[in-house]
Amino acid sequence: MKNCALDLGNTQLKVALFQDRDFLNLEVFTTFQDLVSFLNNETIEHSILSSVLNGHETQQLLSQLNIQPKILGESTPIPIQNNYRTPKTLGNDRLANACFAGVQCPGQSALVIDAGTCLKMDLVNAENEYLGGSIGPGLEMRFKALNNYTGNLPLLSNEEEYQNLVGNDTNTSILSGVKIGMQEEINGLIRRYEANYDDLTIFITGGDLDKFELKSKNTIFADRLITLKGLNEILLFNI
Amino acid sequence: MKNCALDLGNTQLKVALFQDRDFLNLEVFTTFQDLVSFLNNETIEHSILSSVLNGHETQQLLSQLNIQPKILGESTPIPIQNNYRTPKTLGNDRLANACFAGVQCPGQSALVIDAGTCLKMDLVNAENEYLGGSIGPGLEMRFKALNNYTGNLPLLSNEEEYQNLVGNDTNTSILSGVKIGMQEEINGLIRRYEANYDDLTIFITGGDLDKFELKSKNTIFADRLITLKGLNEILLFNI
Repeated sequence: MKNCALDLGNTQLKVALFQDRDFLNLEVFTTFQDLVSFLNNETIEHSILSSVLNGHETQQLLSQLNIQPKILGESTPIPIQNNYRTPKTLGNDRLANACFAGVQCPGQSALVIDAGTCLKMDLVNAENEYLGGSIGPGLEMRFKALNNYTGNLPLLSNEEEYQNLVGNDTNTSILSGVKIGMQEEINGLIRRYEANYDDLTIFITGGDLDKFELKSKNTIFADRLITLKGLNEILLFNI
Repeated sequence: MKNCALDLGNTQLKVALFQDRDFLNLEVFTTFQDLVSFLNNETIEHSILSSVLNGHETQQLLSQLNIQPKILGESTPIPIQNNYRTPKTLGNDRLANACFAGVQCPGQSALVIDAGTCLKMDLVNAENEYLGGSIGPGLEMRFKALNNYTGNLPLLSNEEEYQNLVGNDTNTSILSGVKIGMQEEINGLIRRYEANYDDLTIFITGGDLDKFELKSKNTIFADRLITLKGLNEILLFNI
């Protein structure tokens, strides 16, 4: 049984194929046309769609596809108990991350750290209940904000290697404040989650997952595909 | 001997009066007119000006004042050794904070945390050398960036009280990610400075100085006036 998880963002259209729970391959497109021609050449039994597009755009896309994906929304049945107070406003990516964690760690609490545009943390407790988490600015967003909201600071890049605590010019001061600052923020939040939730399994995903030296008393599992795997878990739960 | 330290930013014009090293009073204005009429009614012996204004604006202001303040720049003699690699690009506020720390803690290392528009950290070592530090996004900047750089997150305020690690709706998730995230970031950076510099004295200043529960093995001295006091130290050094 070949499954397909579609994660359509503003800049990237991601498609992951799975054989049941096993990941097969990932394709990333930037145009609908490429996405459609790829999907229409695959034999896909079940599929799920998470999208930030509006209803009209989504319908336009669906009309061109041979498959009819299940569209993830707040009423979609999921493999965990969603205790978020406002499920309507919960991002699909956070929900998918939580579903991945819940399925991976039955009877255990689990935290997913998603280091992307935003830094998101999401917690599922040992009772398989999703409790929520946090949303802070991501790495690139911090560089952009420093440049945009001040008159005099340059725009630095996410890609620059940097390790020194004490920056000795403008650029290295910013690199310390953003990269080391964010690393300390993540490690501090990990410590707080560990202090509050026993036997915690920690996952990290997102485009910046390899930019930080994380510290935990437990292993931290890094996996770029957690959101897509979580979508696949929701799909499997609905077959 | 009555001294005056002028710190002219984009939104606030701050004036602090000192009797030698003793702080007398602080006035904050929003218009040049109010600033000029206050200063021209005071008897001031020595004064120093730190400004983000351009040369023309500064000259316009100075032409209306009875006093002739010393204008802080990269060639101004200071009471510490400046080892910053690019003194031309060092902000006057960071330099003033470092001078305050250096004068307060002779023979000891000292860190000033300035929680304002940006989160700035600046270090003076036990040899009275300013080494630099870090510049990261401040509290309000983080709220603004989350709203501005995403399509769907609300703009929250700096003022909201918040303590829970796990936010259970959009607003509390953002409050956790920004306020608790930044608190952990500051505490993590403090731990790293303490690990690297023995016998470290820590100061915190800036508009958000009371927004965080900071942790240190040492006392942390909170003082809203550190930048102005640092300017006064530079002034005293030049008299």
